[in-house]
Amino acid sequence: MQRLQQQMGFLLEIDQLKNILRQTHVTDSSRRENDAEHSWHLAVMAIVLEEYANEKNINILHVVKMLLIHDLVEIDAGDTFAYDEKGYEDKEEREEEAAERIFSILPEDQADMIYALWREFEDRETAEARFAAALDRLHPMLLNHQTKGITWQKHDIRKEQVLSRNKTIAEGSEDLWEYAQAVIEDAVENGYLKA
Amino acid sequence: MQRLQQQMGFLLEIDQLKNILRQTHVTDSSRRENDAEHSWHLAVMAIVLEEYANEKNINILHVVKMLLIHDLVEIDAGDTFAYDEKGYEDKEEREEEAAERIFSILPEDQADMIYALWREFEDRETAEARFAAALDRLHPMLLNHQTKGITWQKHDIRKEQVLSRNKTIAEGSEDLWEYAQAVIEDAVENGYLKA
Repeated sequence: MQRLQQQMGFLLEIDQLKNILRQTHVTDSSRRENDAEHSWHLAVMAIVLEEYANEKNINILHVVKMLLIHDLVEIDAGDTFAYDEKGYEDKEEREEEAAERIFSILPEDQADMIYALWREFEDRETAEARFAAALDRLHPMLLNHQTKGITWQKHDIRKEQVLSRNKTIAEGSEDLWEYAQAVIEDAVENGYLKA
Repeated sequence: MQRLQQQMGFLLEIDQLKNILRQTHVTDSSRRENDAEHSWHLAVMAIVLEEYANEKNINILHVVKMLLIHDLVEIDAGDTFAYDEKGYEDKEEREEEAAERIFSILPEDQADMIYALWREFEDRETAEARFAAALDRLHPMLLNHQTKGITWQKHDIRKEQVLSRNKTIAEGSEDLWEYAQAVIEDAVENGYLKA
């Protein structure tokens, strides 16, 4: 049962993802979203929006797995806000250390498997990773639009920043990038986002 | 874009799952867990614990999909506490109506797909559904044990009830039911759960 104990240890450890808050708010604006909720939402998005991936016949299980575990490193490294340039300076180092600690609670074969999934997501070199990353960028935009731009306004974000930050969505899905640009336009027209 | 609009409408609608509170608490005992977090945690459990399913070569993508959507009906029907006998009287009717409303926000083919996944989970007639249901039963036990039985004590739950309610775990995984029984024993020995 040594193996099962390690697996259960990991599963209890990652419960902490529920307490890592993002800048984005849930759609009723009542509070900030946490990483576990965000990961769940992304996984459902992958299933519903699979047809819009640029590359056809992607392995959707692989996409879902990456999305479920992509933020686990934030248990140690914290959430780095998308527009926090300073936070991005040492993000990679902090997250690499976190991956080392958290994933190695698992038996070695599974630690390697989760590490590989996380690395693949970060590197965006496969069709699956590009689609997963596109959803990860699209999701906060949808919630920001829905909450009349709470987070954009709090951090004084402008349209150009949102366009520049998120244009990589097109690498995973041209269709979803087209949709995202319409969302951004609508946000500007409604005063949720500065032009 | 009619199809994509419907899909986005559904994805925003289900954001409400983040506000459906369960009786179970997160592992640091600070607050009750919500259904979105629970669904995320179950999906990761499925990936890590796949090897313990009674039936080998199950379709794990199918298990994960069921787990991601299994609680969506609670957006309308609310969470029914596992030991609430009265709540179970009209649970099926309330949830069937909820499924009808929420899933039909999607394009018809996807509404049918999600409905079929939900029905399969509820019916527990496939190997995938039995394994998914086993994880859904195991999860609150792990959190209750970790939080020194907060929920068991609040609702005055006894060991016999926990054993009786959760013995169907064995239908999905004999190994995990063995583990669960050890957790229950440990909870009794530590005074987290009444004998």
